[in-house]
This record gives sequence, C-alpha cells and structure tokens, in this order.
Amino acid sequence: MKIAIVGASGAVGQEFLTILNERVDFPVDELLLFGSERSAGSKYEFRGKQIEVKLLQHNDDFKGVDIALTSAGGSTSIEFAETITKHGTLMIDNSSAFRMDADVPLVVPEVNPEDALNAPRRIIANPNCTTIQMVVALNAIEKLSHIKRVHVATYQSASGGGAQAMAELKHQYEQLVAGEEPTVNKFAYQLAYNVIPHIDVFTDNDYTKEEMKMFNETRKIMHSDIAVSATCVRVPVMRAHSESIWVETERPISIEEAREAFSTSEGIVLMDEPSEKVYPMPLFIAGKDPVYVGRIRKDLTNENGLAFWCVADQIKKGAALNAVQIAEWIIRNKK
Amino acid sequence: MKIAIVGASGAVGQEFLTILNERVDFPVDELLLFGSERSAGSKYEFRGKQIEVKLLQHNDDFKGVDIALTSAGGSTSIEFAETITKHGTLMIDNSSAFRMDADVPLVVPEVNPEDALNAPRRIIANPNCTTIQMVVALNAIEKLSHIKRVHVATYQSASGGGAQAMAELKHQYEQLVAGEEPTVNKFAYQLAYNVIPHIDVFTDNDYTKEEMKMFNETRKIMHSDIAVSATCVRVPVMRAHSESIWVETERPISIEEAREAFSTSEGIVLMDEPSEKVYPMPLFIAGKDPVYVGRIRKDLTNENGLAFWCVADQIKKGAALNAVQIAEWIIRNKK
Repeated sequence: MKIAIVGASGAVGQEFLTILNERVDFPVDELLLFGSERSAGSKYEFRGKQIEVKLLQHNDDFKGVDIALTSAGGSTSIEFAETITKHGTLMIDNSSAFRMDADVPLVVPEVNPEDALNAPRRIIANPNCTTIQMVVALNAIEKLSHIKRVHVATYQSASGGGAQAMAELKHQYEQLVAGEEPTVNKFAYQLAYNVIPHIDVFTDNDYTKEEMKMFNETRKIMHSDIAVSATCVRVPVMRAHSESIWVETERPISIEEAREAFSTSEGIVLMDEPSEKVYPMPLFIAGKDPVYVGRIRKDLTNENGLAFWCVADQIKKGAALNAVQIAEWIIRNKK
Repeated sequence: MKIAIVGASGAVGQEFLTILNERVDFPVDELLLFGSERSAGSKYEFRGKQIEVKLLQHNDDFKGVDIALTSAGGSTSIEFAETITKHGTLMIDNSSAFRMDADVPLVVPEVNPEDALNAPRRIIANPNCTTIQMVVALNAIEKLSHIKRVHVATYQSASGGGAQAMAELKHQYEQLVAGEEPTVNKFAYQLAYNVIPHIDVFTDNDYTKEEMKMFNETRKIMHSDIAVSATCVRVPVMRAHSESIWVETERPISIEEAREAFSTSEGIVLMDEPSEKVYPMPLFIAGKDPVYVGRIRKDLTNENGLAFWCVADQIKKGAALNAVQIAEWIIRNKK
C-alpha cells in the first residue's frame, strides 16, 4: 500500500503519522507527505525513516497512491480533490467540504462502515469531531431503541482550532502568569479562564455551523430521522472534547441496559462508577483511542430519556484515528 | 438597620462587604462581622471604617441585629440558627441547610419575592448559585407559557468551591507554567486544562446533589411542576457560571417573543447578536450584577422548545447579591 498524508505538518497530519507508526499492522509500503509552501521541505520520521514533505501541486504526484489521508482545510480539499483522485487514489478527507454531498459517504467505522464501499468520486468524508464521538455513543443506544431526539452541550478543547490554537491557549496562561496581557488570534476572545459559546460561523437559524454539523451529519451517518439540538462551546482544555448528552428513545431504556450496551459496543469504554469518582475527563483521555462514556442517568424530565457524558480525543477518534480506521476497514473488506 | 455578616472572610462574605459598600442606598447604621477562630480578629473596611471580625459564639451578640447575612457552610448555619434568630434577627442563609424545609422560604427576588414575607423561623434561604441564575431566566419564559421540562448543562467556575478553590486553580496554572506538578486539594482532580463532571456528592439516582438542587429548588422557587434534568460540570474559569439550557413550553414561543421577554425582565441583560459576536462569556461577566442571556434559538428537536445560554457571576447574583436583594425587598415591603 502506498499512503499519502496531505497537510502533514498540521495537528491532524502529525497525528496521522503517530497513528500509522503505532498501528504496525497497517500495511504501509511507502508513505508520502504533502503540505503547503510553509511546510514543504520539513522532514518527519516514519518507522525509522526521514520523509520530506513535498509541496502539494497540480501534477501527477498521486499516481500509484492507494489512499490519501487529507487534512489541509476545506478549500484545499476542494481545489485538489481532482488532482488527488484522478489516477484512482481514494481520498479520505477530514475537512467539511464534501461531508453532505450525496455521492460522498460520511463514515464512522463503528456505525456505518458499509457506506465506505460506495464512493463513486473516490472521496470518503471523515465527520466533524464532535459528531464522531457522539454517534459512536448514540449507536449503542440506537440498537436498543430508536433515538428520536438528542440535546447536546459540548465542552470542546483548543485542539479543534489546530496546533496554533493549542499553542495560543498555552501561551495565554504563560502571559497571565507573567502578568502580561494575553494574545488573542485564533479564537474570537481570550480562551484562558473563559468559555466561548461560538465555534465556526453562525447560520441563518442562529445555530453555528458546528452545531448544524451535529444535526446534519448525525442523520447522514445513522441513516435516521434523529433530531439533534446542539450548543457548541469552546473550553480551555488542550485536546479532548466532552459532551453532555440527553437522548429520547421510542421505548424506555434502563440504566442497566444502557450500561450493558455501552460496555459491549465497539470503540466505547464505559467509565461509570460515580461512588468511586470514576467518570471520563478530557485531561486524562487526551491521546487515547476510544470514546469514553460515563455519568449515565435517567432523564428526570422524561421516562423515555437518558442522560450521559461522553469524552474522546478530538485529534484521535475525532479526526485522524477515525480516518485511519476507515482506511483499515476498506483494506480488510475489499480483499 | 443593624446588619451582620456571618462568614465574613469567605469568598461570599467578602462579596457581601463589597456589595453593601457599593449599594449606598442600603440602610446600614451598624455592621457586625462574624467568623470562625481562623478569621476572628481580622479587620475589613466598610464605608470608611475598620470593622473587626468577632468570633461566632453561642451568646447574645445578635441581640438588636435586624438582618444576618450568613455564608459559613451548612453545618455552621444549622448549629447557629437558634443563636442568630432568637432575639428576632432575620437570617438570610446562603447554605443549602434549610432550602428545602417547608417552613423556610427559598427566594429569588425577581421570581418569588412575596415568599420572603412568610418566614416563621425567621430564616430565609438563598438558593444554589446555578439555580438562581437559571430561574431568573426561566421566569421570563414562564410568563409567556408554562415550562414543562428543562435540560441544562452547566459550566461552573472555581468560585463555587470558595476562595481557596479559586486560588488553587490559579496556582495550578502557575505550577504548570513553571514545569511543576499541580497541587490538587479543593477539587476531585486537576481542574487546570480539564473539566470535571462532578460537583457536590452523588445521590442514589446517580445525579449529584448539585444537579438535584437544580431539580428541587427550581420547583420550590417557581411554585411549579417543572422537571429539570441537569449535568453540572466544573470548568477552569474563575468566577462566573455558564449554562446551556433547553426549555419545553406548553405552546411554541418564537425567538422574537423570547428576546422581548428576556430584554424586558428585571435582572436580565440580553446579549444576543451572533453576527456581531455578542453573547455572554464568564470572563467578561465576572463581577457584574445581572443574569446575561444569549444564543437564543428554536430547539431543533421540538416545536415547543427553545435553547439559550445564560451566564452570571456566581459570587454576586449566584450568592451574595441575591441575599442582599432579598434583604432590600424585605426592607422596602415591610414599611
């Protein structure tokens, strides 16, 4: 297998390298790295070899590449999709550019892996980070009883804004400790000691695009009429996202059923022993692969409702890992 | 009026002093300060005079005191309620000790001020901080149509844990910047760069006491069968609490009606111009009196639902200010 990473120097690009290094069974015969003019020429180690980042250009560099893992922003994905896929390369794209296109599957391997086999444009879209971790959890409940409604409030880390956003948050605390005015560039306002109820741009219904992704992408991935009302909030955490979720199902689900479903579902780790102070928290889940679920309770407003808390690493399961898992599923199931 | 502050050295006690200094119309002829052995002997300035903190003891120190504003923890409130009230002093108590007692009114002046007039034990309870700011906002909607259900996820600041908890959060960032291991004493886990879905102790239904306060206190204050399902989360913010709220009303409420109701309700400031990046944030609302509401949207899962975002200073409206406003209402309405 010849694999390419596009956007190799970014936070997700670097995580692609880490994950491919970790997953020794992933069959990489050759790895190519691509990036912008800023990152071209940089070198990164992969399985003991130094690989130089090539400049992403409109040429035939992708000839012979089996899978391109792309994370270079929506406009780059749109501009280079034809260049990347024209010789048969499968593009697994982390941007939001193609997610809602009818002829582009939107895939979370624990939920709808078969959709990956029908990619007429040789593009598969990786969902939004907040949606990925939520649908992994929702899918466990959906198998018990159809979910009609979801309310979700997010606690999203700086990593969703990329490597520079994470550096800015860290720098803000350094500046505050030094008695200096914190620098604000990557977020709308100072994030240190603050929470910001605004991620991505606002749409006509006053939800943000991030919140509408949770509505639209969840429906597409789950093939469902599920309705999701989200409030997406940036919090001063480095890299894992947390979500407070309420679901309403067609029939009542007991706590015991829900715990059993979460604990036996692929990709989920149940962390729910409140008396022992066991519940997922982003600080301790950063860098880990699974989606963690805890704080499972009955919804006190609704017999058919459940409340729970869900945490996952935004750069891993929320981005790079999910894309690599899509590639792994395709490699396994195309043979 | 002779006023006493009990727990004068704590975060809320200090805020009582600030607020009474600010509110020049509040008729204080004499101010007494009380505290534990640790704080007795400390001196604080009030309207130009130095006042020494007296040791809280079982004696007749409260004779002649009209109103005692108490914030010294539930066990101290229980132990000293008789001592404080026995000569006719009205005790406005910030602890959770008496809140659900049938013969103790639980009051938010914007919502149920008249309840304050019926206090047979001469004790009025100040509600939990997260509940106060929420019911001020809910009350504006309730006047339009009865609220049946509420889902609320909180983003609670360190100030809820008191002055030492705030100091611990600040110190954790100083330690992290210095490359040291952060000290954890006041919270269950490191709060810097983290969020912790656990405030107060867990109850039998796996909700925390903090979450059940939002259920029970809201019903008592609003004289309503309203059902509240809350997830309470500590975030690394210094002193204002934020809440992501969904309400379901008996009839559909339009965005315009909701905006009008919030903007004309006592104690609420509407901050809702998403296109101008205008929405409430805790960093900028710390130290302010009102409850701020923004991000008003239709609930995408329910025609009778609304979503909004609510921020208020936990030590001001969430504690000391609400208690002082109760005192002011009583002074005005007893004449």
